[in-house]
Amino acid sequence: MSKANPGKTQSMVCEQQASLTQSLSWLHRGVSEIFPDRPDSDDPNENLVRRLETVDRPLRVKLGIDPTGTDIHLGHSIPVRKLRAFQDAGHTAVLIIGDFTARIGDPTGKSEVRRQLTQAQVEANAKTYLDQVRSILDFDTPGRLEIRYNSEWLSQLDLSQILELLGQMTVSQMLAKEGFAERQAQENPIFLHEFLYPLMQGYDSVAVRADVELGGTDQKFNIAVGRDLQRHFGQTPQFGLLMPILLGTDGTQKMSKSLNNYVGLTEDALTMYSKLEKIPDTSIPDYFELLTDLPLDELPENPRDLQKLLAVTIVSQFHGETEARQAQKDAQTLVGGQTAQARSVPEFSVSSVEFPAKVFYLLNASGLCKSSSEARRQIKGGAVRIDGDRVGDENLTFESPTDAQGKILQVGKKKFVRLVE
Amino acid sequence: MSKANPGKTQSMVCEQQASLTQSLSWLHRGVSEIFPDRPDSDDPNENLVRRLETVDRPLRVKLGIDPTGTDIHLGHSIPVRKLRAFQDAGHTAVLIIGDFTARIGDPTGKSEVRRQLTQAQVEANAKTYLDQVRSILDFDTPGRLEIRYNSEWLSQLDLSQILELLGQMTVSQMLAKEGFAERQAQENPIFLHEFLYPLMQGYDSVAVRADVELGGTDQKFNIAVGRDLQRHFGQTPQFGLLMPILLGTDGTQKMSKSLNNYVGLTEDALTMYSKLEKIPDTSIPDYFELLTDLPLDELPENPRDLQKLLAVTIVSQFHGETEARQAQKDAQTLVGGQTAQARSVPEFSVSSVEFPAKVFYLLNASGLCKSSSEARRQIKGGAVRIDGDRVGDENLTFESPTDAQGKILQVGKKKFVRLVE
Repeated sequence: MSKANPGKTQSMVCEQQASLTQSLSWLHRGVSEIFPDRPDSDDPNENLVRRLETVDRPLRVKLGIDPTGTDIHLGHSIPVRKLRAFQDAGHTAVLIIGDFTARIGDPTGKSEVRRQLTQAQVEANAKTYLDQVRSILDFDTPGRLEIRYNSEWLSQLDLSQILELLGQMTVSQMLAKEGFAERQAQENPIFLHEFLYPLMQGYDSVAVRADVELGGTDQKFNIAVGRDLQRHFGQTPQFGLLMPILLGTDGTQKMSKSLNNYVGLTEDALTMYSKLEKIPDTSIPDYFELLTDLPLDELPENPRDLQKLLAVTIVSQFHGETEARQAQKDAQTLVGGQTAQARSVPEFSVSSVEFPAKVFYLLNASGLCKSSSEARRQIKGGAVRIDGDRVGDENLTFESPTDAQGKILQVGKKKFVRLVE
Repeated sequence: MSKANPGKTQSMVCEQQASLTQSLSWLHRGVSEIFPDRPDSDDPNENLVRRLETVDRPLRVKLGIDPTGTDIHLGHSIPVRKLRAFQDAGHTAVLIIGDFTARIGDPTGKSEVRRQLTQAQVEANAKTYLDQVRSILDFDTPGRLEIRYNSEWLSQLDLSQILELLGQMTVSQMLAKEGFAERQAQENPIFLHEFLYPLMQGYDSVAVRADVELGGTDQKFNIAVGRDLQRHFGQTPQFGLLMPILLGTDGTQKMSKSLNNYVGLTEDALTMYSKLEKIPDTSIPDYFELLTDLPLDELPENPRDLQKLLAVTIVSQFHGETEARQAQKDAQTLVGGQTAQARSVPEFSVSSVEFPAKVFYLLNASGLCKSSSEARRQIKGGAVRIDGDRVGDENLTFESPTDAQGKILQVGKKKFVRLVE
């Protein structure tokens, strides 16, 4: 936790967490619910703070990962950030890749959501996932991260063990689960195998002997099933630590790729910045609490400053502070706030271009225009800008790569590239 | 099918079945329901008669056996007799020993009914079961009997296959099952693992590729689950052939060992005879239809003759006609109809007795009296009978084993033995 790499805010974040850890305030930040939760109890099985104060070994903190998708967004990052906070407090993050479920998919073919993946796809997705959370989690400190694939134990279960798992719950308990209850009320069929998924997730907790399981508020039922199964198998039941579901950039619906209201962890700095700068004011407090470690009582009052601080702070986590500041500058440069539509700025390398180079040539070479003649017409029509300034001269020329480097070349309102060496 | 052994009615039964087979009337005798059942259809998948008429291979006729108990009674024998009828018509009886379920018991410990048995217990029970049905089924003709243990396939199922099985049914379908529906209405908890048992029984049908499954009327749901699973696995669904649940000797409740209204297949001839002779008149037609092959339109009209014919016919199936007639004679001989209380007549071998032998000595040696002096007192008190005749002389003597053999020695109304060599 040094400032050896001042370009990355990760080190800043760590410092903040380190100090927060001492007071355990990191534990409650951005948490919707901890269960069981008896703050007055001295029993470390009922009071997570008490457990953390008294435990003489690292706690095993579980987070389950579904490797069916590859792109993860800021909503997904919330429990991962909490996992990091536990790591920084000296505990062990147990990341469970749900490869078993992903590989079998829905063997009944009834669910489109649970499509079946090959072993290779699962492995590739898991790798992509891990690459994305690498900037959040501590992968390096020995004993702080355990990555487990649940096929390790689920593929070994036989019918008698599955009967035993199923026997821990009643039909009424299962039908009380959110989702099932609604479907039953609407007389939408619930297939019996669906009852097994919460039990599989619960059994993961038994297999890794989890002390704490993290999840969104929609995971309460499944985490509680894990507690029941651990009790059945003679283990101390885990604590559940639930975090809110993040609203998307629209400020109204859950962040989701399919709703296109998301900020992906692999998006370039400018795209991320542009999306975050436009978060509705009502969502800003949640974003600060859930996605940054800044002290919430020291934030600027000016709404515009708040938005910029939020955007640059979050972008810094994934791209470092230098790139975040550059993205802020680029966003201001681009015309008419069109980046608010969250288009990314692709880069175009001029390394193979001969200089001096005409702008119309670069418009064609970079793919912004289909031909040099179309490029000339666009310049004449006044549709071309460089760093937001309209180009009047169709023979405008960049003298050298240094001259071009970093400039944003733009045609109309929606097409642009950043020139890089 | 010869009359080489006229002492056994099995040969008579076979002859009758052979002639019945030709008309397929054997199929419908004593059957509550066949499903699917479209008598007008020419489709051999919807009309079992049509299937039997057109099939070019032996049908595979399944009957599942629960090896948790050892004593089986006439109620259990009904589907076994139907299985024999299929064998006699050239088909294959597939007897499935439910060893998997018996060996795992109820792994949740919630059911007292499904207690766990060891491998050795299961094997012993299966052997006892097979010994008892040996007099009903054709064990000898090649290809007519297949005995399978369902652990062969159930122990091999993994979680993905079990998800697939569960996925074939909805919660509503399962809750419609008799038993579940009532328990849900009464808010008695139904544990999830209970849903797996019908699917396990259904999967047995897939594993053995059953064409027909036999069972009591209480098995309709489970047999229908088998049909669904076979369809899912690309097999032609089995027919279900349901037989009534037999009323016990009290004529009011289902025959059951625990209600003590049963006739066990291993009971001695006299006990069987005595129980059967007292079946209430209202039950006699069912007993004839379900437990004998006698033509129902040629039965005697006199109720007493009917009872005797029923008793001697059924006893003959298990003990041969000679013993059945002897039992009939013994029952008539015994005083005051006390055998109606269904006491068996234990045998006492006189092989180690020195002849001539005093009756009071035999009363003591056989255990009917605790001492010779008690035996003398009983004779003097008029409580001792031989073959129903009161013994007046306390020094009455059997001259030889032949003299004693076959005699029934009786003290009071409830204690008797048959003297055998």
